[in-house]
Amino acid sequence: MNRRTVLSALAAFTAFPVVSALAQTPAADPLPSWNDTATKKAIVTFVERVTKPGSPDLVRAAERIATFDNDGTLWAEQPIYFQAAFAFDRVKALAPLHPEWKDKEPFASLLKGDIKGALAGGEAAIFQIVTATHSGMTTVEFDQIVRDWIATAKHPVTGRLYTEMVYQPMLELLAYLRGNGFKTFIVSGGGIDFMRVFADRVYGVPPEQVVGSSGKLNFELRDGKPVLMKLPELDFIDDKAGKPVGIQMHIGHHPIAAFGNSDGDLQMLEWAKGGGGVRFALIVHHTDAEREWAYDRHSSIGRLDKALDAAQAMGWTVVDMKNDWKKVFPFGSK
Amino acid sequence: MNRRTVLSALAAFTAFPVVSALAQTPAADPLPSWNDTATKKAIVTFVERVTKPGSPDLVRAAERIATFDNDGTLWAEQPIYFQAAFAFDRVKALAPLHPEWKDKEPFASLLKGDIKGALAGGEAAIFQIVTATHSGMTTVEFDQIVRDWIATAKHPVTGRLYTEMVYQPMLELLAYLRGNGFKTFIVSGGGIDFMRVFADRVYGVPPEQVVGSSGKLNFELRDGKPVLMKLPELDFIDDKAGKPVGIQMHIGHHPIAAFGNSDGDLQMLEWAKGGGGVRFALIVHHTDAEREWAYDRHSSIGRLDKALDAAQAMGWTVVDMKNDWKKVFPFGSK
Repeated sequence: MNRRTVLSALAAFTAFPVVSALAQTPAADPLPSWNDTATKKAIVTFVERVTKPGSPDLVRAAERIATFDNDGTLWAEQPIYFQAAFAFDRVKALAPLHPEWKDKEPFASLLKGDIKGALAGGEAAIFQIVTATHSGMTTVEFDQIVRDWIATAKHPVTGRLYTEMVYQPMLELLAYLRGNGFKTFIVSGGGIDFMRVFADRVYGVPPEQVVGSSGKLNFELRDGKPVLMKLPELDFIDDKAGKPVGIQMHIGHHPIAAFGNSDGDLQMLEWAKGGGGVRFALIVHHTDAEREWAYDRHSSIGRLDKALDAAQAMGWTVVDMKNDWKKVFPFGSK
Repeated sequence: MNRRTVLSALAAFTAFPVVSALAQTPAADPLPSWNDTATKKAIVTFVERVTKPGSPDLVRAAERIATFDNDGTLWAEQPIYFQAAFAFDRVKALAPLHPEWKDKEPFASLLKGDIKGALAGGEAAIFQIVTATHSGMTTVEFDQIVRDWIATAKHPVTGRLYTEMVYQPMLELLAYLRGNGFKTFIVSGGGIDFMRVFADRVYGVPPEQVVGSSGKLNFELRDGKPVLMKLPELDFIDDKAGKPVGIQMHIGHHPIAAFGNSDGDLQMLEWAKGGGGVRFALIVHHTDAEREWAYDRHSSIGRLDKALDAAQAMGWTVVDMKNDWKKVFPFGSK
């Protein structure tokens, strides 16, 4: 006998308006920072379809896997990817140990604050910056370097900590899904060991549920103590067609819901939708120049072009940040 | 107020022997297939040290990560690794589609039942057998192939399904750890997508907690539907020094307990013990020729030589299968 049955039975005997008392205390809205638009309705409808006992589309808890991109989906990515800001800060911090960087690109430009000049070297320049700042130390040392940086570095526009630049509606969505038996994963082009430093504290996503890009590691004994050295060699790029691969390698389930914001997420969204049954794909469209940023097809950061076409063609859910979100960041807006 | 306090308070008022009634109903032994030897005691002592409220060595639940090798640790591995039996069976099943195999090594020898001859070609021969049987299909197709095989193939010595050839004491150990808030992972040289087919059902370890060796995958659209193709190219070998790397990539925590049986597990055990604080490393030593198999330093399957020396030098826990296990397989013994 469930609670409602017990209360109805009681009500019949006592003539107290128990059922209407129940109706007067609805569960608190789990998505308070979402306006009551079609987007919010699509999210709630999906979750109820796959979780409500007796629903013909019920999915067992073990298969309730949801994957989230990070940059531009869970936290901001303007004016540059936050991990790039970390890398640039590290180049500055390490410069005294590398006097040769003064005359060597891409470091020379970076040290003069000329990011555009530094990146003129294309992928080779990016690779040099990444390896100079993300390898040559143990995993434990790197973890501490990121931990120190993220505790103090400030966003150039808002002056806030980077971990404050997370989207309040998406934090609520993560919690709402977990409250409905979902296991939430991050699947991002960002570095796996960079994101793990804050993902648990900020998003409630533990290290084993973070999938990202990585460099090669080498197990060795240093002074008799085992360490994992970060090598200056790419291992895996968890972006575009790499995202379904990363999902398969790390999760081994077909996600039933995926959340992204850019062309880098297109294949992850296709993969989630391709699983058969009721599936959910959502794109965060950055439409709010006032409270956050507005960009899509022509942005070099978080370009949303093909995935926006796909969303429109396939009927995926698109968040119109300006109209769908009551609040952007926990502290308000830009 | 906990249960005992309530009962004590009650007992004081009623003079009923409530406390002694409690003492007469101790919790059931969570490890009934383990004899009461020093090995069992070492396991229980470790778990209590890291989980008992108030213990100076208490580890929070999120960090209670335990990693288990599979072949020879959770299930048997004689007379050949079970995944090799799968590959050989697949070669036989696929032979009609490959008439050229009749004259081509290593397939020609395999088809005549001459495993030794087939493996005379060393690593190149193994690679040919693995790629012929583990690539060229989608992940979903491979999953179904393994599912069909494991539901019917029989062990050559016992005539049992391979999934029956699991160690009852280790199943109890997995459940005991999980009952104490541990998250249990498999970290094996076996194929990640091979093991995921049965790990959840047999060990209670879901796909996202299985770490293994893998081939490269390619995301593509086939008839407009997204698939992941298994390519004939190695991606990662989760063995020896690869195990700590696999642990870092997939789990991102330092395990506090690790369980293995061969030299392939040495670095995983070193890594677990190297984490600082109270850590546990255990080796299953195959000492029971009658009920299972007896082998160690000179076996080509599951060789245990350097890791046995390390265990003795470092004081790791070594299971003497013959004396420490009351029962080997759920169905009894070989």
